[in-house]
Amino acid sequence: MRTDGRQANVLRPVAIEIGVNRHAEGSCIVSFGHTRVLCTATVEERVPPFLRNTGKGWVTAEYAMLPRATHSRTAREVGKGRQSGRTMEIQRLIGRSLRAVALVDSMGERQIVVDCDVLQADGGTRTASITGGYVALHEALQKLVKKGDLPKLPLREPVAAISCGLVKGQALLDLDYVEDSGAEADANFVLTASGKVVELQVTAEDAPLELAQIAELQILAEQGVRQLVEAQMAALAAAGLA
Amino acid sequence: MRTDGRQANVLRPVAIEIGVNRHAEGSCIVSFGHTRVLCTATVEERVPPFLRNTGKGWVTAEYAMLPRATHSRTAREVGKGRQSGRTMEIQRLIGRSLRAVALVDSMGERQIVVDCDVLQADGGTRTASITGGYVALHEALQKLVKKGDLPKLPLREPVAAISCGLVKGQALLDLDYVEDSGAEADANFVLTASGKVVELQVTAEDAPLELAQIAELQILAEQGVRQLVEAQMAALAAAGLA
Amino acid sequence: MRTDGRQANVLRPVAIEIGVNRHAEGSCIVSFGHTRVLCTATVEERVPPFLRNTGKGWVTAEYAMLPRATHSRTAREVGKGRQSGRTMEIQRLIGRSLRAVALVDSMGERQIVVDCDVLQADGGTRTASITGGYVALHEALQKLVKKGDLPKLPLREPVAAISCGLVKGQALLDLDYVEDSGAEADANFVLTASGKVVELQVTAEDAPLELAQIAELQILAEQGVRQLVEAQMAALAAAGLA
Amino acid sequence: MRTDGRQANVLRPVAIEIGVNRHAEGSCIVSFGHTRVLCTATVEERVPPFLRNTGKGWVTAEYAMLPRATHSRTAREVGKGRQSGRTMEIQRLIGRSLRAVALVDSMGERQIVVDCDVLQADGGTRTASITGGYVALHEALQKLVKKGDLPKLPLREPVAAISCGLVKGQALLDLDYVEDSGAEADANFVLTASGKVVELQVTAEDAPLELAQIAELQILAEQGVRQLVEAQMAALAAAGLA
Amino acid sequence: MRTDGRQANVLRPVAIEIGVNRHAEGSCIVSFGHTRVLCTATVEERVPPFLRNTGKGWVTAEYAMLPRATHSRTAREVGKGRQSGRTMEIQRLIGRSLRAVALVDSMGERQIVVDCDVLQADGGTRTASITGGYVALHEALQKLVKKGDLPKLPLREPVAAISCGLVKGQALLDLDYVEDSGAEADANFVLTASGKVVELQVTAEDAPLELAQIAELQILAEQGVRQLVEAQMAALAAAGLA
Amino acid sequence: MRTDGRQANVLRPVAIEIGVNRHAEGSCIVSFGHTRVLCTATVEERVPPFLRNTGKGWVTAEYAMLPRATHSRTAREVGKGRQSGRTMEIQRLIGRSLRAVALVDSMGERQIVVDCDVLQADGGTRTASITGGYVALHEALQKLVKKGDLPKLPLREPVAAISCGLVKGQALLDLDYVEDSGAEADANFVLTASGKVVELQVTAEDAPLELAQIAELQILAEQGVRQLVEAQMAALAAAGLA
Repeated sequence: MRTDGRQANVLRPVAIEIGVNRHAEGSCIVSFGHTRVLCTATVEERVPPFLRNTGKGWVTAEYAMLPRATHSRTAREVGKGRQSGRTMEIQRLIGRSLRAVALVDSMGERQIVVDCDVLQADGGTRTASITGGYVALHEALQKLVKKGDLPKLPLREPVAAISCGLVKGQALLDLDYVEDSGAEADANFVLTASGKVVELQVTAEDAPLELAQIAELQILAEQGVRQLVEAQMAALAAAGLA
Repeated sequence: MRTDGRQANVLRPVAIEIGVNRHAEGSCIVSFGHTRVLCTATVEERVPPFLRNTGKGWVTAEYAMLPRATHSRTAREVGKGRQSGRTMEIQRLIGRSLRAVALVDSMGERQIVVDCDVLQADGGTRTASITGGYVALHEALQKLVKKGDLPKLPLREPVAAISCGLVKGQALLDLDYVEDSGAEADANFVLTASGKVVELQVTAEDAPLELAQIAELQILAEQGVRQLVEAQMAALAAAGLA
Repeated sequence: MRTDGRQANVLRPVAIEIGVNRHAEGSCIVSFGHTRVLCTATVEERVPPFLRNTGKGWVTAEYAMLPRATHSRTAREVGKGRQSGRTMEIQRLIGRSLRAVALVDSMGERQIVVDCDVLQADGGTRTASITGGYVALHEALQKLVKKGDLPKLPLREPVAAISCGLVKGQALLDLDYVEDSGAEADANFVLTASGKVVELQVTAEDAPLELAQIAELQILAEQGVRQLVEAQMAALAAAGLA
Repeated sequence: MRTDGRQANVLRPVAIEIGVNRHAEGSCIVSFGHTRVLCTATVEERVPPFLRNTGKGWVTAEYAMLPRATHSRTAREVGKGRQSGRTMEIQRLIGRSLRAVALVDSMGERQIVVDCDVLQADGGTRTASITGGYVALHEALQKLVKKGDLPKLPLREPVAAISCGLVKGQALLDLDYVEDSGAEADANFVLTASGKVVELQVTAEDAPLELAQIAELQILAEQGVRQLVEAQMAALAAAGLA
Repeated sequence: MRTDGRQANVLRPVAIEIGVNRHAEGSCIVSFGHTRVLCTATVEERVPPFLRNTGKGWVTAEYAMLPRATHSRTAREVGKGRQSGRTMEIQRLIGRSLRAVALVDSMGERQIVVDCDVLQADGGTRTASITGGYVALHEALQKLVKKGDLPKLPLREPVAAISCGLVKGQALLDLDYVEDSGAEADANFVLTASGKVVELQVTAEDAPLELAQIAELQILAEQGVRQLVEAQMAALAAAGLA
Repeated sequence: MRTDGRQANVLRPVAIEIGVNRHAEGSCIVSFGHTRVLCTATVEERVPPFLRNTGKGWVTAEYAMLPRATHSRTAREVGKGRQSGRTMEIQRLIGRSLRAVALVDSMGERQIVVDCDVLQADGGTRTASITGGYVALHEALQKLVKKGDLPKLPLREPVAAISCGLVKGQALLDLDYVEDSGAEADANFVLTASGKVVELQVTAEDAPLELAQIAELQILAEQGVRQLVEAQMAALAAAGLA
């Protein structure tokens, strides 16, 4: 039995609220249970140096946690003068995941910056960030289409992400903080709506893992992502952005 | 006529939502019109080095803006490795303002850290932060009283803050971003419920200011703070924390 | 009775020595009692990016203390890799104060950098810096006029600054370090020669302040600034720069 | 046909030279083709704060590239004052991989720091680092056993790592720099001698990946790691450390 | 003929003014022509970690230039977050030079920090800093003797420093900025009152140097240091500190 | 008798292995006994800002130690965010030494960056770096000549460096780490093949030094450098680069 009574293959309640920031071109607050992330997408009419004058676009992401997103307060990274390795790793993952479904060659020479700021953390902040980040990105690009700045939406298909792990030998979907802390192995699956793999990261926290166990986690993840994509599509449709 | 049709002496709509973060000992989202700040108060059972073994407590504050709180995206300060002068100035002001009403000698040897993170900015982020920061601090201290960790609430009286300024020669209360950008002078009043001055900062943006003009701003500010304190008290009362 | 026997409304001995640096376009050492600040003004034939190609000029300031300016030695800020919040706050105040009297639109597209380095500190370093900074700025601009680079002095009127505070309930002018450390409230007035307000900062260190008390401080400050402006003018006249 | 004429499932020439640093408790230079990494293991008789007085040990890793390890010179990270996200990600991966086979509870309260410094890079620096890092760690721990400081070698089994990827639709083992730059997908497998998974990272560089393709990569990786473990064991045996 | 009409073997006017800072235990302003350095010595009743509980003392130095000490303004090092290589090199040289004449074993477990802040630069700032730094150190230690904290002055003998160089093939003593910029070779001699060598640094700026030329520079330097030591002794004697 | 049985005037075994890095335009590993430094020379077709459009070239150097180059592990400098004073001092010395023999006006508008990374340290890392750095520089420039990018080798003559010191009153050549730690005085001589002085640094570690003692060290150094230049020439000749 899980801490909140869920079955092994059940997600926490998922909510996606679009349009939470009046300045950003795209924005949402995504919740996976008590984990809550504010995602904004900013359209900038410039690209990184290596893409200048290529006519191609770019998607990048940044990630941070508010100091009291965590159970006890975490000092701000600006105080140390640099981002932690964990922060960098997560924001690089979010960026790669979104770029894998973005048709950057058809975006025009502009950059979308997706900011994922964790308001409250209870496990799964990186997977919630990718899932909400896609929605903010979709909104920002859809608006460019509506304004006539782009002929059609430069996205292959939706992408979403979910964690799963082995806790006391059992494969569980969508770990909360307590489950994650005690997991023997931890995996993050970034999958597309059609079930393709964008990123897969498996980590044996304690002892190495049998290959069969990864297959078990993968089945859970595919179920989870299917539901997340439904939630993304429902939120976008309700906002007239599908 | 002001951008949003307000009279010169009218605040923007004020809202204070308490209990927005399940980890923090005190928390609220405060809105002054489109300006929205998430304030959390964290109780730490330790104090800065200069207070160790004195039996006295401390209140401190930190301030930051999410990158897309602003009209166009602002780069994160961690990227430059240091907080800007503006950020430091504001968080020092918030900290002094809250300490001025906190009976730090009666708090026990503990520190309350008030984090003010601007989710959306439209002028007045420092005054909203002080106003919401007080509510989060009050909640955190009230909980210590309820748990029996403190005999009574170590607060003199509520404190709140409001900006006012001279725009085209007219004194206006609670400037929004557009008004603030065009103001000839800008003042921030931090006042207690009983109308005493905790901090007063007047800046002539363009040309120096007559003393009579400051008196005019002060009358507006007193009206504004009175209403803010009412909003603070109503929110705390509704949450059973008054 | 004050530590040095002064009456409540009396300044410490003020001295302004012009021409103390052979490289700088403007320079002075200003003393308020034992507080001694070296101010230099540098003319740079370039402006910050936001002013390029506007034909407008700029005035900015930097502030620092030598390590042994203080009673006990203070570590250099370069060792921590960043300026403290106090330093940034003060140098931003000096810059705003000088810009308030500078006709930046009539300065040509050039920048004056005013450096205020505290050689010895005994309270009031920011007010001494503004007072001396004005003199260095005046000298640098006057030299541009003399060289024919400017048609006339682009300054509205002199600006100077003084602190005052409440110590044991009494309003005192120009606090020294010991008085400042024990003050209940602390105010810095930046006023022009004609008595207008450029910046006003009041801080209740301990308990909040009655409004009447601020009025009392203001009367002292106006007296003090009048004498400081006389000292500025006398020094500039003696140097043939008035 | 691959750039160097290899079959798809063939490793580049692997070499492991033990004992290359006279100060380090463990050391080797590992080569995967032209990629060459100097790995040293340092035994420190202290542990990170969170392990103090637990009797448990720790293994951690650091990674860096010499400036001219790369085709064109890469500026040193110290010049920017911080490690890049890529560096942090890699050194965290090396550390987790080594800890997964280390019996840290049986190491005594000491820490082994494994430094992986890339002398020359041609793709696969992180997998070479893990493979060589294990050898240096093994040597350092074996020496503690020989000195009688540990009753037996606190290692579960050897660990090694290899990259594979999809290049023009074909699954290839052990990509060199040119292959890696053009790969559609890139995977790093960290496996134990017995074929268990310690870490698995799959990244679709361009378009998302079918699950069947991952299975194909995995078969290659298992073959590769088997040979790497043989090379590790041969080198350790030759040095009398097996 | 030199820029200021001096003979090749003549120092610029040297002045040493003691007692220029009321907080510091030792202080002076030393001038070598237009080069002017404020030196303060601070006595701290603690030592660096490597000397704790050894009963031994320490002498260390820090060096900096005010931004407008130079012909054109130099940005503050705190802005870059770190000291330049030149600054570090110079302050390490000053520290070693003073330690070479200090009997650190007889100073008690305390540290003297000598700060050398260049108010105005015209060549020779490091040699002026050593020469003035010695005076400040001497004053601080002499005061400890007078207070009875030390039985006798823990100094071997005075130390002073002078630059010399080859300019258009001619050996010159005490180069000013213009001479230094055009010198073929540049040498700094740190010598004791009795003519012993504490530090010697010779740099061929352009083409390598014959050994005979170094001997020529050395003769000049010995003459110069003799006069500097006389100036140090005269200043200390006049202040009752010899 | 010295630790390794050498006579006072005998170098440790010297080895120079050219061509150790396939990417660099010039490279070698130089050994002075157990001290081993990897030197690479990178040709960049750009120069520092102060040389742009002058047609002149530049030579610069960087220096670092791998963490376990030292007896006990030394933390990486990137962790502190800045290079130490020692590192900066050494890399500035290497750069000046190489520039003293480079005909930068005849190099074309390009820069050679010489990286000296210490793989293993046992005293004399800066002198080994200069000696090996010359070889890498020579190789890189010779290749430009061979490619026809330069008409002839823009080098005056070879340069090499050696340390010597006074240990228990005796002058010794080429100190190892243990000798260096106990030396009363320490000198580094950077000399050309023809015996001219490029840099000379003498430091009295403990008590000041007689001038006659420096002369004694110089005789040793000249002998040492002569042998180092022979080793440089032999290595370059064997590689067909002389």
